[in-house]
Amino acid sequence: MPDRIAISADLGGSAIKAGAVDENGKILRELRVETRASEGVDAVLWRIETVVDSVRNNLRDSHHEIIGAGVGCPGLVNTQTGTVHFAPNLTGWQDVELGPRLAERLKMPVLVENDANAAAWGEFWIGSAKTASSLVLFTLGTGIGGGIVLDGEIWHGSTDTAAELGHMIVEANGEPCACGSRGCLEAYSSVTGIRRRATEAINAGESSALSTYLNNGELSGEEVYTCALSGDPLAARLMREAGYYLGVATVTVMHMLNPEKILFAGGLAAATDMIMNPIREVVQTRALNVPRDKASVDFAYLADKAGLIGAAGCVFHRYATSA
Amino acid sequence: MPDRIAISADLGGSAIKAGAVDENGKILRELRVETRASEGVDAVLWRIETVVDSVRNNLRDSHHEIIGAGVGCPGLVNTQTGTVHFAPNLTGWQDVELGPRLAERLKMPVLVENDANAAAWGEFWIGSAKTASSLVLFTLGTGIGGGIVLDGEIWHGSTDTAAELGHMIVEANGEPCACGSRGCLEAYSSVTGIRRRATEAINAGESSALSTYLNNGELSGEEVYTCALSGDPLAARLMREAGYYLGVATVTVMHMLNPEKILFAGGLAAATDMIMNPIREVVQTRALNVPRDKASVDFAYLADKAGLIGAAGCVFHRYATSA
Repeated sequence: MPDRIAISADLGGSAIKAGAVDENGKILRELRVETRASEGVDAVLWRIETVVDSVRNNLRDSHHEIIGAGVGCPGLVNTQTGTVHFAPNLTGWQDVELGPRLAERLKMPVLVENDANAAAWGEFWIGSAKTASSLVLFTLGTGIGGGIVLDGEIWHGSTDTAAELGHMIVEANGEPCACGSRGCLEAYSSVTGIRRRATEAINAGESSALSTYLNNGELSGEEVYTCALSGDPLAARLMREAGYYLGVATVTVMHMLNPEKILFAGGLAAATDMIMNPIREVVQTRALNVPRDKASVDFAYLADKAGLIGAAGCVFHRYATSA
Repeated sequence: MPDRIAISADLGGSAIKAGAVDENGKILRELRVETRASEGVDAVLWRIETVVDSVRNNLRDSHHEIIGAGVGCPGLVNTQTGTVHFAPNLTGWQDVELGPRLAERLKMPVLVENDANAAAWGEFWIGSAKTASSLVLFTLGTGIGGGIVLDGEIWHGSTDTAAELGHMIVEANGEPCACGSRGCLEAYSSVTGIRRRATEAINAGESSALSTYLNNGELSGEEVYTCALSGDPLAARLMREAGYYLGVATVTVMHMLNPEKILFAGGLAAATDMIMNPIREVVQTRALNVPRDKASVDFAYLADKAGLIGAAGCVFHRYATSA
């Protein structure tokens, strides 16, 4: 019997990654092309098709049965129809029928999943949460997303918009968030939030190595982390506070959902102890004993492969039994 | 074929209610006795058995098939074993094998459920959420509890402690909570929280009709509501703020779980618009459009019958198909 394979793609604002993944979650082939979202929806669709097709063709001579493809996509997707309603980092992506179009061109079943949900599924399937039955994943990057797995299924909510963990309110009258609300987790613990807070502090007269980066354009999470490591007080404080607010959100997640695992993924999570120590301190001092003692709070193991592996895992989960 | 009936009991700090409920959620018989928790665990267990048995005997001559009993209990229960680990309002209740003991005495299957979970199941089964597939219920009283129904099942979490909605953190550095943390929803929007805040304001020199009640002993939610209705500024402000923080928690619930229904039950919820208006205002201005537009935010319809009906509903859900 040939090995069963799922093709997966991870559609990001700057790159499209595609892979061939086996039933153990092992990536057998991997390709990466630029997204070039500015060239428009059709150009991006063509590039997704091309890169997925290349991965597939690359497998042709081997003994594999390809059972379908899964695409992890940022933003708001309809997982039933495969439509992308809105993707914040992809110019012009409004109600794009990504799933049906890919299925027609590639002649195979295609599912579309929110990228953070796909990453959560990857961690649940084969990563840091593979022994757990419930998982909440925070993805820390420009913004903050999330994925929730309950009782062995991704929880999508009633309109496919569950796990918008960046917009949990952690400070009722807190700082402004890009969403129009205030006090969202994303306003404190995302790269965007840290950048805004750094700018405010520097404009208010605080001196920091971060000002050089801000003056030269964008400030990345890695740069804040580097400055904090080298002892810059503002950078260190902002990282600590980012962790603190993640800890506050983690306590709320524990008290609401009492999951077995709570994981952190993405660029900022790579700052390891600088983020995880304040998270653990808040959890230790402020969570109720019973949900806390049985829950583990950790980094996500699969790191930037979680989306690719998870989208493939979704394909196996949805199509494998009927294939 | 005889009608199938579930016996249910709602175990509270001051009263034990018991009922016989049919498959449509209709209460056919109902009894109420005092709990008298101070008399000890065995005395309370005997009173539960007696009142449940009285309800059952009262049905003997009619054409009913009793398929089991369900008990809604405050605090921390193990829904698999029927053990009550801890019940804050019941003196001495530590690891009481309520389910097994009742089953042995009553010679029928007995399940034990957290009382707020039972109320959520009642609303889901036959009340305000009966057309929904997902529901989050806040119970507003001395403290704040909750119940979560997802995809047609109560979500218990990994250690049966999910839906502790009173301990969602809504104000990261906020007011102290009885749980030892700070900024919990319960510190602002429960009767205990309102009472503490009223005391602080009055001690700080604010004049209010509430001071009379506080000086005479306990201050109830109804009294705060009455004073607010009659124009007392402190009472009105505390009610408005209780609603405001419930709105903040509601936004977090929407963004995390994207449920179809969010309901409010209990004494304080009876203050209707005074609580619901600020909740709706926060939701309208601060929730993301998609989860907000499809979610309904309402009072719970079954009011103080939700626990009794819901515990019976749990019996039908667990035992009816195999009966």
